[in-house]
Amino acid sequence: MQIGVIGAGSCSEEIARKAEEVGRAIARRGAILICGGMGGVMEAAARGAREEGGITVGILPGDDPESGNRHLAVRVATGFGHGRNVLIPRSCHGVIAVAGGYGTLSEIALTLKMGVPLVGVETWDPDGSFPVVSGGEEAVDLLFRRLEP
Amino acid sequence: MQIGVIGAGSCSEEIARKAEEVGRAIARRGAILICGGMGGVMEAAARGAREEGGITVGILPGDDPESGNRHLAVRVATGFGHGRNVLIPRSCHGVIAVAGGYGTLSEIALTLKMGVPLVGVETWDPDGSFPVVSGGEEAVDLLFRRLEP
Amino acid sequence: MQIGVIGAGSCSEEIARKAEEVGRAIARRGAILICGGMGGVMEAAARGAREEGGITVGILPGDDPESGNRHLAVRVATGFGHGRNVLIPRSCHGVIAVAGGYGTLSEIALTLKMGVPLVGVETWDPDGSFPVVSGGEEAVDLLFRRLEP
Amino acid sequence: MQIGVIGAGSCSEEIARKAEEVGRAIARRGAILICGGMGGVMEAAARGAREEGGITVGILPGDDPESGNRHLAVRVATGFGHGRNVLIPRSCHGVIAVAGGYGTLSEIALTLKMGVPLVGVETWDPDGSFPVVSGGEEAVDLLFRRLEP
Repeated sequence: MQIGVIGAGSCSEEIARKAEEVGRAIARRGAILICGGMGGVMEAAARGAREEGGITVGILPGDDPESGNRHLAVRVATGFGHGRNVLIPRSCHGVIAVAGGYGTLSEIALTLKMGVPLVGVETWDPDGSFPVVSGGEEAVDLLFRRLEP
Repeated sequence: MQIGVIGAGSCSEEIARKAEEVGRAIARRGAILICGGMGGVMEAAARGAREEGGITVGILPGDDPESGNRHLAVRVATGFGHGRNVLIPRSCHGVIAVAGGYGTLSEIALTLKMGVPLVGVETWDPDGSFPVVSGGEEAVDLLFRRLEP
Repeated sequence: MQIGVIGAGSCSEEIARKAEEVGRAIARRGAILICGGMGGVMEAAARGAREEGGITVGILPGDDPESGNRHLAVRVATGFGHGRNVLIPRSCHGVIAVAGGYGTLSEIALTLKMGVPLVGVETWDPDGSFPVVSGGEEAVDLLFRRLEP
Repeated sequence: MQIGVIGAGSCSEEIARKAEEVGRAIARRGAILICGGMGGVMEAAARGAREEGGITVGILPGDDPESGNRHLAVRVATGFGHGRNVLIPRSCHGVIAVAGGYGTLSEIALTLKMGVPLVGVETWDPDGSFPVVSGGEEAVDLLFRRLEP
């Protein structure tokens, strides 16, 4: 199972704590965490997953495989800039969006367009079509309930 | 000057009329129209621009250069699916969004992320950060006023 | 009809003359010229096509729609770096390769992989599977004979 | 360290044996193996790496994260077709090319263009600029000697 975590490259400490909780909960369920590989929400989620022994993958916007945060096990250097945003929902069985700006909104929209299950944590809610909750663990629980038949 | 028109692959007749008006107004100003090359809003806008003698470009999701609507002068077959959405704001000096679904929302978000001037016609308004108007001609007027110093 | 011209971003005067000849011959046949949009072979071919009144399209590696040589009518800013190489054979009915380095070799290989008709002018000949000739006009003649039934 | 293995989606048993040897040798050195995720050379190399307990990543041409061979730990579904070829050299510290067709030739050319260290096993040799050897283990030894200062 591959779960995407999307969110901005910088965030408040409170949001980082929730993103880390998301990462921990994903790894504890044995799933691989895929994110955009940069700072903020992406770094906090990857740190949480690594601390639980999970595999973390960064789909990087730049073209340097050495770039990205230090909690990534695998780094895919796309060199596509925001064009890499499409690769996260496409590669994942489910996605968690944590807060975020316009980049995150583009990924939310692509996730909805592809019909991939999505749960948000204090994030954009463009049309009420997916659940947006407050806690990181709660979000992962909700996503897995939607994924497991 | 290259202006993008984004919107869904199928739409109501009223929205198609507005998209065609957008296409006409873009071509009358001598700008090149870039769109996703498919039906609905994309086809209506391209038809309008062609009828005014403008150059129309389709950035197609598929990998067949013969695909896309018949009002395109140039067809770029990307084969990237929704991944091609990033190419329209990236290649344009300004963007008009006409109605649309999740694909259009992803393009709106990418346009905002890149800081490319954007005007909407009866479309998503995630945070009130760009003008959304009712008429096609009005939208193009507004966009060019923002582009011309 | 869309014809791709691939080649390096810098080249000798003799190669530039041949690339310009290729561009002229493509435009005289009423076809659209698609190239990588940069200097060298790409610029010479675009200049030739423009001088004959043809439409020229640059599929740029960078993310600035103002970049690319000044003979382009349409600029698609991909921001994908060498990743944009796949877009030229994918979008074209036939391709002419003029001299070139490793970037051109990658495009030759992708063109062969996709089964798009290819003619070379003093370029890589990895396995003798496509004709490599000396003159620009000769190459375009040969390509069109393969394209027209 | 991330090492790419490139080669065709179908191959002889002898080539598969060499690709498996390449995969084993990469994993034994503690490096992550990145490949195109499909059959043939990609599958054999991934199988070898998995049998040694290594992490294997498939950069898939299609858009289904369930696709690809069964020896992949991580699957990145690009949906870019041959456009995904650029992602392997971009993401790797070194690349091994095993036999292969035009797709492999495009990846060899992109690897050379990016200046990423490359060793071949019975593969294309367009200009004698990189070593092409006969054995899989030998190729990995040679690559690591070039990577380690």
